[in-house]
Amino acid sequence: MHAISFIQDLAVIMLIAGVVTILFHRFKQPVVLGYIVAGFLIGPHTPPVGLIHDEETIKTLAELGVIFLMFCLGLEFSLRKLFRVGATAFIAAFLEIGLMIWIGYEIGQYFGWNNMDSLFLGAILAISSTTIIIKALGDLKMKHERFAQLIFGVLIVEDILGIGIIALLSGIAVSGNVETGQVFATVGKLTLFMIVALVVGILLVPRILAYVARFESSEMLLVTVLGLCFGFCLLVVKLEYSMVLGAFLIGAIMAESRQLAQIERLVEPIRDMFSAIFFVAIGLMIEPRILLDYAWPIAVITCAVVIGKIVTCSLGAIVAGNDGRTSLRVGMGLSQIGEFSFIIAALGITLQVTSDFLYPVAVAVSAITTLLTPYLIRAADPLSGKLAQVMPERVSRVFALYGDWLRSIQPQGQSAVLAGMIRKILMQVGVNLAIVVAIFLGGAYFAGTLATYLAPWVAQDNLQKALIWGAALLLALPFLIAAYRKLKALSMLLAELSVRPEKAGRHTARVRKVIAELIPLLSLAGIMLLVMALSASILPTGELLIAIGLLAAGVIALLWRWFIRVHSRMQIALFETLDKPEQPH
Amino acid sequence: MHAISFIQDLAVIMLIAGVVTILFHRFKQPVVLGYIVAGFLIGPHTPPVGLIHDEETIKTLAELGVIFLMFCLGLEFSLRKLFRVGATAFIAAFLEIGLMIWIGYEIGQYFGWNNMDSLFLGAILAISSTTIIIKALGDLKMKHERFAQLIFGVLIVEDILGIGIIALLSGIAVSGNVETGQVFATVGKLTLFMIVALVVGILLVPRILAYVARFESSEMLLVTVLGLCFGFCLLVVKLEYSMVLGAFLIGAIMAESRQLAQIERLVEPIRDMFSAIFFVAIGLMIEPRILLDYAWPIAVITCAVVIGKIVTCSLGAIVAGNDGRTSLRVGMGLSQIGEFSFIIAALGITLQVTSDFLYPVAVAVSAITTLLTPYLIRAADPLSGKLAQVMPERVSRVFALYGDWLRSIQPQGQSAVLAGMIRKILMQVGVNLAIVVAIFLGGAYFAGTLATYLAPWVAQDNLQKALIWGAALLLALPFLIAAYRKLKALSMLLAELSVRPEKAGRHTARVRKVIAELIPLLSLAGIMLLVMALSASILPTGELLIAIGLLAAGVIALLWRWFIRVHSRMQIALFETLDKPEQPH
Repeated sequence: MHAISFIQDLAVIMLIAGVVTILFHRFKQPVVLGYIVAGFLIGPHTPPVGLIHDEETIKTLAELGVIFLMFCLGLEFSLRKLFRVGATAFIAAFLEIGLMIWIGYEIGQYFGWNNMDSLFLGAILAISSTTIIIKALGDLKMKHERFAQLIFGVLIVEDILGIGIIALLSGIAVSGNVETGQVFATVGKLTLFMIVALVVGILLVPRILAYVARFESSEMLLVTVLGLCFGFCLLVVKLEYSMVLGAFLIGAIMAESRQLAQIERLVEPIRDMFSAIFFVAIGLMIEPRILLDYAWPIAVITCAVVIGKIVTCSLGAIVAGNDGRTSLRVGMGLSQIGEFSFIIAALGITLQVTSDFLYPVAVAVSAITTLLTPYLIRAADPLSGKLAQVMPERVSRVFALYGDWLRSIQPQGQSAVLAGMIRKILMQVGVNLAIVVAIFLGGAYFAGTLATYLAPWVAQDNLQKALIWGAALLLALPFLIAAYRKLKALSMLLAELSVRPEKAGRHTARVRKVIAELIPLLSLAGIMLLVMALSASILPTGELLIAIGLLAAGVIALLWRWFIRVHSRMQIALFETLDKPEQPH
Repeated sequence: MHAISFIQDLAVIMLIAGVVTILFHRFKQPVVLGYIVAGFLIGPHTPPVGLIHDEETIKTLAELGVIFLMFCLGLEFSLRKLFRVGATAFIAAFLEIGLMIWIGYEIGQYFGWNNMDSLFLGAILAISSTTIIIKALGDLKMKHERFAQLIFGVLIVEDILGIGIIALLSGIAVSGNVETGQVFATVGKLTLFMIVALVVGILLVPRILAYVARFESSEMLLVTVLGLCFGFCLLVVKLEYSMVLGAFLIGAIMAESRQLAQIERLVEPIRDMFSAIFFVAIGLMIEPRILLDYAWPIAVITCAVVIGKIVTCSLGAIVAGNDGRTSLRVGMGLSQIGEFSFIIAALGITLQVTSDFLYPVAVAVSAITTLLTPYLIRAADPLSGKLAQVMPERVSRVFALYGDWLRSIQPQGQSAVLAGMIRKILMQVGVNLAIVVAIFLGGAYFAGTLATYLAPWVAQDNLQKALIWGAALLLALPFLIAAYRKLKALSMLLAELSVRPEKAGRHTARVRKVIAELIPLLSLAGIMLLVMALSASILPTGELLIAIGLLAAGVIALLWRWFIRVHSRMQIALFETLDKPEQPH
């Protein structure tokens, strides 16, 4: 019977995993490592062999483990946290990921691996492990120190970039080559998709969850959460992105709902169950022979991860203006790889573009670097003390001067408030324009399908296009108007700042007005040109375009106030969900 | 890709289930029905067909759903509750199950179905649905009324009997015929297995859980719980019992641990997820054609369930001394079938002994009776009022007299305390003897395996047997001694009660002493004869037996105190876990 062998597999996995994790916990090692070792022990490559019968089903459940892991990562992510993350996190994360991908790629090339293996190796080394760092800092009781907060910031940025890397790698693996233009197109589309998904998701999902939560049945809430999670993953897969991206995004969306705590309480046991299966399944794949054959690459890569991450992250932290001790602690905390690496390695196998050895090598490097993590974190303080002694005085003076300079150029007082306002307006403009672009791209994408529906009524091809494009324009109008108004506010602000009465004299008001009108109109014209280029395939020609333009102008004139009201309502709904105290209006 | 079609299935199941259950909830119908309808909607028999791709994997997950359902039923069960259940529950449950099996069997025969189908139909109709009743009583806000408490008692007894029915059916299905002797042997073995599993389990499992809970990691606790659950299910399957029995038993064992609340909190979301899949999978199997073809049997069976259960349960409640109104409410509350019926129907399919139509018929009957449940509960009160008016005065006087008589024969005051003491001693004796019997049966069962291990050292067959039997005796000694001591206490009590000084005069003390010594010795002799019969295959012959007997006597004489101490420690541990305030000693 199929079911019994399946239950047997689960029993073996959970029993061995239970015993091994208890042992690992007693010896103060991360539970995750325990799972991998348990998988290795019961795996097909370890005598007495064959404790797992139905590896296919276990692997399917392990996929669920990835989904739940990323979903819970998304739940813990939250956009608010991202807004609050400082410069350190961005600089350190970008520096680390860029350099580690390059180092990984070069190591792969050095060992004569093919391009795809080298590229995936780079990606595998790029991202540090959130679970292992949280565990290690918790064990060392350092979670609330300043450097730990910086590390969490870096991890948040890394998660976003990691999601991007996975999407990029999928694209590259399918097309088979790396072209700069293509990479930019992929990144652009991905950003667009993420913005639209987040905006639409945050408008819809928390409302659905709040509705279901009113019934006060955790069963119904759980089923709804699971339905939305799997459903969104499916949608993302249909759009040819990775399931991992979908799970993370829907998690981040649900993080904005008021039911977050309840959802976490419900989903955590399920995640624990399936992620245990996921990590055990990783252990199942370890072949001792491969580890022996690749001992040398493993050693080199491990050193590269530890040294590379310490250097790049510390450097990033120093560049962002932290002192040497804190920077070194940030670097040494981030010097390992973990679950993201497994997911990227699994992606390579699923897409059938990487060699068989890459996965076990990644697991081995992760295991070693994980074991080193707590020791490295503890060693950071003494090491920074020694480094400070050894360093020539001139170098340390340069660092100190750099820090002072950085602080001096940071906007303070009124100008800091202004910078904050400008940043916020630019972000709102960006979100509105992203939605506009998404509407037109969507129209172009579904034009073929829509045309077949329109065919019975509208025979002419040009007229069909005009209808679709016009509908897209109508749909986009509230967001265009909103973007225009925000841009106008921004240009008034800029005009106020740049045109000083003491210089422009009696022309002040007029010059300011010209600037305040000109900038938004020019940018809007630019935006419309971009939109037209993007939707070239459905852009109607000649008179029809003019007719639509006139129609749109008429609609705008008539419904201006209504459009503004619709948009501001949506915006209020969005910010209500995001629950930001510093809400505009 | 396999994983994606699997995620798609899960997405479809959870999304449709979510929407349908919300609708059902709004219309005040049980969520369980919503799942089944959702499964029917997305099933292969409903156009537009084919929303589920990988039915095999879904069915495997549905099996997990059954395990988690029964496991949580076990968690809610708890032996303490069983001890507290009154006579009503036992009488009503036995009457209901016995009569409903018979009615079901007769209906099957009437429709010309084969013996196995008829027998399974009987079993399907026997047990009411805990989930649906709890839901309905909760909705009607009647959970705390007296009749609801009686219903919960009946359900607890039904669960135990249902587990027995499942074990019996498996045995009958495998052997293909129903012999009274065989049934008794099966029931005997099952009871023995359950007692031993409960005693050993309650001694071990709560200690393991308490140990793991000390690490304060819900992840580790969950993995341990799942490992023990699946592991025990596997053990039970290897012993050729149903997985369902294993899940229920290990749940009942864990119900005695101090971590019960935490375990329930962790396992409930997992149960909700998989039980949703289980109920949806039931809906998947519904073929509208079968429902139409079997409309007539479904109607007959539905009437039989509603009327049969109302009559048998009400009768049981009346026989146990409840008034007519309460009895009718108990009967009308229990008049539906549910999850147990699905499990029994699924068992028939898995064992390939029932016809294809039985499952959909069971589902249809369950759906209709479930829908009727809240109306029946609400109708009970007016109906009992009307019945009271219609009933001839003489009949109602008989009922009233019967109730008075029942109350008059119930032990009260000191004799109630005595009855309680006697019951407790008999239970302790029973448990101890069950362990003794299990030790000898286990010895006989594993004799072959043990003999091969012994062969290098002990060549002679008879000597091997003697060693095994002697070891079993040694192992059983503490329990035998305990049983002897309890029996002695009981007989002293009985002697005290039966031999009154006013009758026996000056012989009182002597007669009492004789009785107090004779009864335990005689019963022990009887027990040893039974044990010898059960372990006939490994019973050594002639001198060896005498030698072992002498050895045992010597050991007893030497270690009497030690044995008593060992046993009382185990007993204290057991009762500590059961956390009974009225602990002996």
